[in-house]
Amino acid sequence: MLGEILDAVRRESPLVHCINNYVTANDCANLLLAAGASPIMAQAPEEAEEITSACGGLVLNLGTPSPEKAEAMLRSGRTANKMGIPVVFDPVGVGCSQLRIRTAQALLQSVKLTVIRGNAGEIRALADGSRIRTGVDTENVLPEDASELARALARITGAVIVLSGETDIVTDGETVCRISNGHPMMRHVTGCGCMLSALTGAYAAASPDSPLQAALAAVCAMGLCGELAHKRLTALDGNASYRNYLIDAMYHLRGEKLEEMANYALF
Amino acid sequence: MLGEILDAVRRESPLVHCINNYVTANDCANLLLAAGASPIMAQAPEEAEEITSACGGLVLNLGTPSPEKAEAMLRSGRTANKMGIPVVFDPVGVGCSQLRIRTAQALLQSVKLTVIRGNAGEIRALADGSRIRTGVDTENVLPEDASELARALARITGAVIVLSGETDIVTDGETVCRISNGHPMMRHVTGCGCMLSALTGAYAAASPDSPLQAALAAVCAMGLCGELAHKRLTALDGNASYRNYLIDAMYHLRGEKLEEMANYALF
Amino acid sequence: MLGEILDAVRRESPLVHCINNYVTANDCANLLLAAGASPIMAQAPEEAEEITSACGGLVLNLGTPSPEKAEAMLRSGRTANKMGIPVVFDPVGVGCSQLRIRTAQALLQSVKLTVIRGNAGEIRALADGSRIRTGVDTENVLPEDASELARALARITGAVIVLSGETDIVTDGETVCRISNGHPMMRHVTGCGCMLSALTGAYAAASPDSPLQAALAAVCAMGLCGELAHKRLTALDGNASYRNYLIDAMYHLRGEKLEEMANYALF
Repeated sequence: MLGEILDAVRRESPLVHCINNYVTANDCANLLLAAGASPIMAQAPEEAEEITSACGGLVLNLGTPSPEKAEAMLRSGRTANKMGIPVVFDPVGVGCSQLRIRTAQALLQSVKLTVIRGNAGEIRALADGSRIRTGVDTENVLPEDASELARALARITGAVIVLSGETDIVTDGETVCRISNGHPMMRHVTGCGCMLSALTGAYAAASPDSPLQAALAAVCAMGLCGELAHKRLTALDGNASYRNYLIDAMYHLRGEKLEEMANYALF
Repeated sequence: MLGEILDAVRRESPLVHCINNYVTANDCANLLLAAGASPIMAQAPEEAEEITSACGGLVLNLGTPSPEKAEAMLRSGRTANKMGIPVVFDPVGVGCSQLRIRTAQALLQSVKLTVIRGNAGEIRALADGSRIRTGVDTENVLPEDASELARALARITGAVIVLSGETDIVTDGETVCRISNGHPMMRHVTGCGCMLSALTGAYAAASPDSPLQAALAAVCAMGLCGELAHKRLTALDGNASYRNYLIDAMYHLRGEKLEEMANYALF
Repeated sequence: MLGEILDAVRRESPLVHCINNYVTANDCANLLLAAGASPIMAQAPEEAEEITSACGGLVLNLGTPSPEKAEAMLRSGRTANKMGIPVVFDPVGVGCSQLRIRTAQALLQSVKLTVIRGNAGEIRALADGSRIRTGVDTENVLPEDASELARALARITGAVIVLSGETDIVTDGETVCRISNGHPMMRHVTGCGCMLSALTGAYAAASPDSPLQAALAAVCAMGLCGELAHKRLTALDGNASYRNYLIDAMYHLRGEKLEEMANYALF
């Protein structure tokens, strides 16, 4: 099932509209290309509806926000809903500012989100309005607490929730998947979360009726690439080479390998 | 001739003003440095004229557009025309939105463009106003059709047209060059087109009286680097390593090698 | 002393707010992660104070400026001053436009800057209002002249000045440090200056009472990584691989090695 989703992206090459932060946009675009999808980055409100209309998936990333980008996200989100294409929301640092909280709340109210992906602090801020204490980094939470947090937000929003952490959680509010793929070194590369969100948009675009499975496939695939990239490291390689190896691994990943190496349990 | 243009850039290190999209700006800057040129990225209308005034070439890239960037492009374009320095226009995804079409039309009306570089869909959208169907990616066209399309736009605009595809076309409306350098893997790296446009700006800056030759040299050099980069790939390397090898190849490319390996025919 | 500052960043992982240009933001973020710090990039005036309030250091980079970013810099700078956290200013291309000069002047008037880092042309433009002649690249000046220039600006502003060049200068207006670490190839990578400024922000955040030592440690560490990266180069590697090796080297650098390899003299 997960492998079929991966292979479908390579076969169909869905066009994915990303309203992304400028820090990780290049890596997100190259990761989407590595996965067989076709990225288009655009954030002007003036063209938001038109760009989304041409696409099979939409990814809204809250990093480096602005009021104009917030407006573009709303317009693109509503367009995606009308078209029936999946919308992935990445609430980067949502508890860090009123601008981010207001933008997220406006999206939650006006747009039906298919998947929301964030770390524990971001998911918590969406679920109960709490502030994030340590910026855009993840905080440590127990898998049990993370599961409850994710399920709570899934029930409030109707979206599939991806909570990234040492163990990743994917849930639609009922089924809970705990994923053990991944490597701690991914935390030393900026934008691993953004890349996963972009990938989830591509997988959901190729599998619009199965957002839980699409999100699970994306989390497993990204984590697996983190593992494969780590195996390639030589003594002098650091986080820059690791970033390249991670995207390289996605370029070579095929469905069969994902099926074999995906490491998750359902609850 | 082509080799002389390449070596002139290394000797003179022209300053090139790029109004670029934020997705590929870093790669464009590093490719310009690899080629021996000196990049300056700036997009505020408030400083557009001043920045262009200090430069030897101007590159206008339509990716991630906004009304403010459109205004900056117009101001910089007019300044470049007054100064007599070359202007390269890359109409990224021009058929995807009214904002992009309007920006392109305003540029075509107010600025004398030296070179326009795009894929078949983008060149077609400029030539006949048609919409692009598959986002920012290239569509497949026969070399004969591509040549006619490029010649038509060259005659309308007076610019040298670079049409990127499996076979690249460079034409001033009379002479048509078909270039066979390049590698299909370049399509899996975001910004190869943007990088080529930036490079064309540097080559045109070093050879302002020969825009056809400058564009031809840039297309051959970029394609050749795509070939050399592909030869370096190991089994685990993917599109991220390939991007690095491509820029690395430009860093080492010299005029003599370009003369030897450039693969094109004139019609 | 220098090694202790480096190790303190790895231990404390200070959150550093960067208002950066979009060209080098990804490299700055990955370099901060490589150094053990935690980056947050944000530039909307609407969230400037809140983001800075959560951080241990602030870095203001004048590349790709806009009036909105100028406003965000002022708000963040004032917030940092109220909190007593260090502010690093990188006046990228300050002499290139009135927008950049006005933004820099507003910052100098309203914000107490802890460290100002630039090349000779940029430091000169701040010290005597002269225009830069060759864009964002460094111009060649004798170490003696550079020292005087840096000391003059240190006395005017009360900031520690880092003047990057073939020999780097760090001074508080009294003590002058001349640093010989580094490699000429760093000039062929876009954003080495931006990365150094970001790193200085992290080091100053971990050592807020010793800005001179923090700046000296950052300059030596960055230069040393430039040397180590150069030793890794193979025949086909160019500036793209060099950029990766540079960040990789920072990922592995520890205090003991910095103490051993730092190459500077005090005057």
